[in-house]
Amino acid sequence: MTEILDLVTGVLNGKRLALARLLTLVENNAPEGQVALDQLYTHTGHAHLIGVTGSPGAGKSSLVNQIALKMRQPSADRPALTLAVVAVDPTSPFTGGAVLGDRVRMRDLAGDPGIFIRSMATRGALGGLARATANVVQVLDAAGFDVIMVETVGAGQSEVDIARLAHTTLVIEAPGMGDDIQAIKAGILEIADILVINKADYPGLESTVRALRAMLELGHPTRHHDAQSASTPLWIPPVLQTVATRAEGISELVNAIDDHARHLRETGAWQIRDRIRLQSELESLIQTELTSQWRAKIPAGLYNQTLAELESRQISPLQAAKRLTQSHLVVLEE
Amino acid sequence: MTEILDLVTGVLNGKRLALARLLTLVENNAPEGQVALDQLYTHTGHAHLIGVTGSPGAGKSSLVNQIALKMRQPSADRPALTLAVVAVDPTSPFTGGAVLGDRVRMRDLAGDPGIFIRSMATRGALGGLARATANVVQVLDAAGFDVIMVETVGAGQSEVDIARLAHTTLVIEAPGMGDDIQAIKAGILEIADILVINKADYPGLESTVRALRAMLELGHPTRHHDAQSASTPLWIPPVLQTVATRAEGISELVNAIDDHARHLRETGAWQIRDRIRLQSELESLIQTELTSQWRAKIPAGLYNQTLAELESRQISPLQAAKRLTQSHLVVLEE
Repeated sequence: MTEILDLVTGVLNGKRLALARLLTLVENNAPEGQVALDQLYTHTGHAHLIGVTGSPGAGKSSLVNQIALKMRQPSADRPALTLAVVAVDPTSPFTGGAVLGDRVRMRDLAGDPGIFIRSMATRGALGGLARATANVVQVLDAAGFDVIMVETVGAGQSEVDIARLAHTTLVIEAPGMGDDIQAIKAGILEIADILVINKADYPGLESTVRALRAMLELGHPTRHHDAQSASTPLWIPPVLQTVATRAEGISELVNAIDDHARHLRETGAWQIRDRIRLQSELESLIQTELTSQWRAKIPAGLYNQTLAELESRQISPLQAAKRLTQSHLVVLEE
Repeated sequence: MTEILDLVTGVLNGKRLALARLLTLVENNAPEGQVALDQLYTHTGHAHLIGVTGSPGAGKSSLVNQIALKMRQPSADRPALTLAVVAVDPTSPFTGGAVLGDRVRMRDLAGDPGIFIRSMATRGALGGLARATANVVQVLDAAGFDVIMVETVGAGQSEVDIARLAHTTLVIEAPGMGDDIQAIKAGILEIADILVINKADYPGLESTVRALRAMLELGHPTRHHDAQSASTPLWIPPVLQTVATRAEGISELVNAIDDHARHLRETGAWQIRDRIRLQSELESLIQTELTSQWRAKIPAGLYNQTLAELESRQISPLQAAKRLTQSHLVVLEE
C-alpha cells in the first residue's frame, strides 16, 4: 500500500519509471491500480485529449509521430507542449502490431522527456479495452501531459467508443480507399472534428476529397456532439491533406487542432464533452457494479435451473432475465 | 394484443407478410414485439445459424447469394433447405448500403418462397443492433427456416459479437488485402470455422492463402470455442477458394458448411455453442434489466450531485459508481 502511494507521488512528480509501473498495474486491472486511480483523479482535467482513428493503412502512426514532433515546438500562440501517445491496438496479441509500432516510433521520438508512448493490446474483451484506455488516459492526465493522443486501429464500434474519450477527434483517410471502406467509415465521419487525408501524394486524391466532403455534408445535420450549445458558433470539420512521410501539411494540421481546442474552450463545448465522457464512464461502471453485486447474491441453483429452462426452450431469454433479477430484489428485501 | 397473437400464428404458419410485419416490430423494439418473442421462443432451436463476416470488398453479399442458391438444391446427404438471410449493415443510415444490397439480391433470389431476406441497419448504438439481430434471428428460427445466415460488414468487435450468434462462422477474405487489414482480421480469424478466399481469380491469391494459413496456425492454440469438448475430434478450419461472380467453388463451400454442422452435432459442440449464445444473451438482458431497475429507483438529486462532484474532480468515477449503487441497495432494503 505504501508502495502504491509512492508510485502515485512519483507520477505526480513526473517520474517516468513510476508512471510506467503504475500504468501496468492499471492496465492489468490490479486492485492497487484502482486505489491509485482514485488518488490521481483529483489531479486530472488539464490535458487536451485527442482521438485519432481512421482506415487501416491510412498512415495513422506516422501522422501521430509528426503531430507529436510539431507540438513539441512552440508556436506563435503557445509554448511547446508535452505529450503522451496511447496506441490502442485491438488485434490479437499474436500479430505483434503494437510492438512493431513502438519500434518505428522509438526512432523519431525516443529520448525526448516531453513525450511518453504507451501501446495497449487487447487482452480479452474490447469493452475491457475501452475501460483500460480510459484509466490509462486518466493516469497520464494526472501526470501533467498537455496533450494525450489516443490512436486506434480500425473502424468498429469499439474504436468509436475510444475516440469518444476525446475533446478532439481526428479521422485519417488515404486516397483511393474503396467505397466499401468509406461506407464503413460513415459512422466514424460523424464523430470527426478534423478530417485528414494522409498520403495526399497518392493517386485518387480528388475523388476521396469529394467523397469525404459529400459524406460530411450529409452527416452534418445529424451531428449531435455539441447539441447543447446550439446557440454557439458551429465547428465545421476541415478537410486537410498531409504527407506524413515527408512531413507535409503538419503545421496546418496542428494549427487546426489548436483552433479546435480554442473553439471548444470559447464555446463551453470543452466542458460539455468532458461531462458526456465522465457520465458515460460512470454509467458503464454502474452497470458493472450492479452486475457484480447481483452475481454475488444470486443463488447458483436458481441461476442454473433458469439457464436449463432457457436451453430447453421453456422460458425465453427475457423471461429468464426478469425472473433472475426479480429474485435478486427479493433477496435484497429480505 | 389479439393482433400480435395473429402475427405469431401467421409466423408459425409460414405467412411471409406476418413475418415481415413482426420483424419490423421486433427491430423497433416495440413492446408487442417482446410479447411475440416470448411466445415464439419455445418454437426455436431448429435452424442452423451461420455467421458471415470478413473484410469490406471481399464480396460477401455475392457469396451469400451463391450459398443460398446452392442450399436450395438437394444434395446427396440432405433435402433442399429453406433459408433466411439477415444482412446487418452497421453503417450510417445515409449510406443506403443495405438498400443497395437488397436490390442486388432481389435479382437472383426474389420470388423463391424458400428464401427470405432481411436487411438491418443501425438505428443508434451498435450494442442495440446486436440485440435486435438476436431477436430477428429468433423470430426466423421460430418461423421454421432450416438455415439462417447473418452477414455483417466490417471487422470490429460488434461484428464479432454478431458472428458469435452462429453455429458456424464463415470468414471471407479476398486476395491482396493489405497487411493492416489482415492484422485487424486476426481477431476475426480466431472465430472462423471456415475461411473463404473469394475473388480467387484476383492477383495475390498465393500470398493471401499463405498469410491466412500462417495466422490460422498461430491462432489455433488459442481457440477456445469448444474448450469444453477437448476430448472430441478437433475441427480444423478449412481454407477454401471461390469466385462468387462465376459461381466457382460454391459446392465445396456448401459441403464444408454441411460437414461443420455434422461435426457440431456429432461432438456435442452444437449444444455447447447454443448454451454459450443463450447465456451471453441472458447476461446482457440481466445487465439491462438491473440498470433500468436502478435507474427507476435512484433519486435524481443524488445522481446529479454525484455527477457534479465527479465533474469537479472531487470524487473519482469508481467512487461515484460505488456511492450510487450503494444508495440503490439502501433504498431497496428500506
